[in-house]
Amino acid sequence: MKAHVYVTLKRTVLDAQGQTVADALRRMEYKNVTDVRQGKYFLLTIEDGIDPEEARVEIERIAREVLTNPVIEEFTFRTEA
Amino acid sequence: MKAHVYVTLKRTVLDAQGQTVADALRRMEYKNVTDVRQGKYFLLTIEDGIDPEEARVEIERIAREVLTNPVIEEFTFRTEA
Repeated sequence: MKAHVYVTLKRTVLDAQGQTVADALRRMEYKNVTDVRQGKYFLLTIEDGIDPEEARVEIERIAREVLTNPVIEEFTFRTEA
Repeated sequence: MKAHVYVTLKRTVLDAQGQTVADALRRMEYKNVTDVRQGKYFLLTIEDGIDPEEARVEIERIAREVLTNPVIEEFTFRTEA
């Protein structure tokens, strides 16, 4: 089973990396991009044969406790078989 | 329109960050995670009123030419209205 975890800075936190990319795109010919936010992406491989609901609980805990800094970041995740 | 771009190291490239996270999880109580790959996530906001097909072409170019180092990285992306 694969789990995709996306960690991004909270909306209220200045995203300097995303801003830099957005500025670069504006200086190039990409005029249609109005905003860029940059985050982290984790692809977790989960052992086969684990109960999917149990796996989701574990992934959610890993995302919250290990992969995300709750002061400035938030996360979403999805799983696939 | 939003575009989600995921940039990861190619399978053949050693992912030291992902390996470090995997090792940390193993030392904690998370025994079911067999592998971790870490990548970058970009959320692009595209101006409204752009033709979706045209937008996809532009996003694909941005991902390929600006967000990805083609020597060691690969990307996928998806769009939503």
